[in-house]
Amino acid sequence: MKRNEPNWLGLSGGGELSPSETQGSAGAPCTGLDRWLAQRLMATTGNPPFTLTLWNGETVYRPETSPVANVILRDRRALLGLIFSPHFYFGDAYSTGRIEVEGDLIECLKAAYRALEAKMPPGSIGREIRNWMHRPRGTGLRSARRNIQHHYDLGNNFYRLWLDEKLVYTCAYYDPPQATLEQAQVAKMNHVCRKLELKPGQEVVEAGCGWGTLALHMARHYGVRVWAFNISSEQIRYAREQAKTQGLDDRVEFIEDDYRNISGQCDAFVSVGMLEHVGPDHYESLGALIRRTLKFGGRGLIHSIGRNRPEPNNPWIERRIFPGSRPPSLSEMTNMFEPYSFSILDVENLRLHYERTCDDWLKRFEQVSDQVEQMYDKAFVRAWQLYLAGSVAAFSTGSLQLFQVVFAHAQDNSVPLTRRHVYTDS
Amino acid sequence: MKRNEPNWLGLSGGGELSPSETQGSAGAPCTGLDRWLAQRLMATTGNPPFTLTLWNGETVYRPETSPVANVILRDRRALLGLIFSPHFYFGDAYSTGRIEVEGDLIECLKAAYRALEAKMPPGSIGREIRNWMHRPRGTGLRSARRNIQHHYDLGNNFYRLWLDEKLVYTCAYYDPPQATLEQAQVAKMNHVCRKLELKPGQEVVEAGCGWGTLALHMARHYGVRVWAFNISSEQIRYAREQAKTQGLDDRVEFIEDDYRNISGQCDAFVSVGMLEHVGPDHYESLGALIRRTLKFGGRGLIHSIGRNRPEPNNPWIERRIFPGSRPPSLSEMTNMFEPYSFSILDVENLRLHYERTCDDWLKRFEQVSDQVEQMYDKAFVRAWQLYLAGSVAAFSTGSLQLFQVVFAHAQDNSVPLTRRHVYTDS
Repeated sequence: MKRNEPNWLGLSGGGELSPSETQGSAGAPCTGLDRWLAQRLMATTGNPPFTLTLWNGETVYRPETSPVANVILRDRRALLGLIFSPHFYFGDAYSTGRIEVEGDLIECLKAAYRALEAKMPPGSIGREIRNWMHRPRGTGLRSARRNIQHHYDLGNNFYRLWLDEKLVYTCAYYDPPQATLEQAQVAKMNHVCRKLELKPGQEVVEAGCGWGTLALHMARHYGVRVWAFNISSEQIRYAREQAKTQGLDDRVEFIEDDYRNISGQCDAFVSVGMLEHVGPDHYESLGALIRRTLKFGGRGLIHSIGRNRPEPNNPWIERRIFPGSRPPSLSEMTNMFEPYSFSILDVENLRLHYERTCDDWLKRFEQVSDQVEQMYDKAFVRAWQLYLAGSVAAFSTGSLQLFQVVFAHAQDNSVPLTRRHVYTDS
Repeated sequence: MKRNEPNWLGLSGGGELSPSETQGSAGAPCTGLDRWLAQRLMATTGNPPFTLTLWNGETVYRPETSPVANVILRDRRALLGLIFSPHFYFGDAYSTGRIEVEGDLIECLKAAYRALEAKMPPGSIGREIRNWMHRPRGTGLRSARRNIQHHYDLGNNFYRLWLDEKLVYTCAYYDPPQATLEQAQVAKMNHVCRKLELKPGQEVVEAGCGWGTLALHMARHYGVRVWAFNISSEQIRYAREQAKTQGLDDRVEFIEDDYRNISGQCDAFVSVGMLEHVGPDHYESLGALIRRTLKFGGRGLIHSIGRNRPEPNNPWIERRIFPGSRPPSLSEMTNMFEPYSFSILDVENLRLHYERTCDDWLKRFEQVSDQVEQMYDKAFVRAWQLYLAGSVAAFSTGSLQLFQVVFAHAQDNSVPLTRRHVYTDS
């Protein structure tokens, strides 16, 4: 099942490695200018602790401390691309093999994140320029559908290869710490359900339901009715099949529609891993939707990748992996709650759980990379390895966060006095 | 110990009830204009469910539902003052006896809060005008000292009359729910210490330490060293005596100085009930101070009254009770964290605990009101009853929140995976 459509990477040649491209300067000598540019590149990225080797095999940069990896630029185009836009170009050049990393990719990326954070701290000119250079795509009704299809409609067979058996594609919750990915995904769903204080017979709206696993879990284990929304046709198709197979199709309805078209009222509003795709311009209207949807006395929970401060997503991730995505800072998230005086009851940061989740995904992905290459191509495999390894590095170095926010209507005094119920196994 | 200095209420006559003032229109007939104005007043405040009676004994307003109380305006000045500035004038007129409430004061205030919230929802013109009319006092170095002395230097003997035995003047934590105020204050201190993950030998900075009870508790029960700052001379004097009496003066240093002058480094930075007095303009510089004070690997905790959305404090409370105070919304609080990429780990809202704390304080205050009147005067007693009852009502109706925010440096991976340690009794 070789797919050439859609050309998901958006690279020339359908993302295939082209020998004439990747070997363009291979073996060619490097000039004094190349060396100088390579050293400038390392200086402007904070002198990260890996060696840099050019296409002729010459190592032109050695860090002061012991190197965690060796980064090889296979041609001059890779060097020039990195100088022009390191955050964006690294991903494309890595995918197509113009850049290779000898050694531990995750450690290399962590080192790069830390060096860049030190060299371009928040508010610095370099960081502002980088953020200004990349305009993320829109997340209106039409764009949202395109953005979501780009990633989530890659095919259920693809995700089945390396996600957990229940197909949960969001941060797991490793409690107890020795939990497997499978166990941690179930623990995450229970963590969410306890925070929502679900009671049998309640009606729940889920915005952005993935393959429907949380919706089915809530119905089966907490006795609620669920209306679950998603604009990924592939995911909705799978979710409906699951509901039927599991005999839950009378209690869970999967609706292929945008969250903006949610209507009716519910006792709990939950959204796990959708807000990253909503875009800050739409938070206030999402809040308005929740206000009219959530009954008085009901609970809301938003689970989203986040940032410690407002900042656009990594440009390569936004362009190639999650178009239109932007992890919000807490101040940005409050635009959803404060205009409607929602009372924020609880915020929990699960950053280190997402580091481990991505690490588990990457390990599984590596095991099936040959199969994935058969389905797509080598560049696809390398791009996804980079995306998963980069996510491990981003959560590990504090560049990304994972926020779970629980909220209620302002005057609702049925809110729990403590959070003990979240930590009491029932 | 009758005090006429300082004239804390700022009213003419030192806050004394003056018969000539309060009885100015008593017994005088009320006109058609008075009746019309009174009814307009009720309409613009959302037709709250209490009756309104004028100085001649005539009830000029009856709600549609069963009234929770009867509010009596003792003279025309009370009526005109309420029309001009209901939020500010009610407090002064109640203190001086121009307004009286027959029935349950708390229920009456809750009803008023709810009616006003419905009539003047966030963003409405009436609310904007109200917020615009009142400019809170500054919180610079000098003003802060004046602001704090106004309230906290009223005298330790006064607070000893009605606070818990350990003199903790912040939101308690009623866990288990049947806890007494004394027990709940201890539970709150332990809740804070567990969130901070205090370990023996650590060094802690406390900004705004009240009578020093938390500082002493941390040193005694968690084996840490504490540097505790406060600009209330009365509180610092008491705290130092306590440290000596309890044999903890080698481990707890009480420093009479502004939080802005904190220097050195610590393993934990804690501030319980100070941020309300800091003022949003100073959050960013407070964050800078915390960044340079908190060692890598350390934890910070800010405990503060808050709001669901940015809004000035009630003008009477800001003028008469807590000058310069402003409870922040979460979006405002993030100005302390986001510029420095602090990672927010945990936010908990303890609103209903503060409702109960204020209710416990009010009950004790009522029991000693005769003694308080001997120390100050009748107007002081009535003002403080109103402040405490109003606080119960504000927390109960969701007008005020209580946020505990735990945070760490961005790249600190020693943060706990779960919050179970907060709920595990050691």
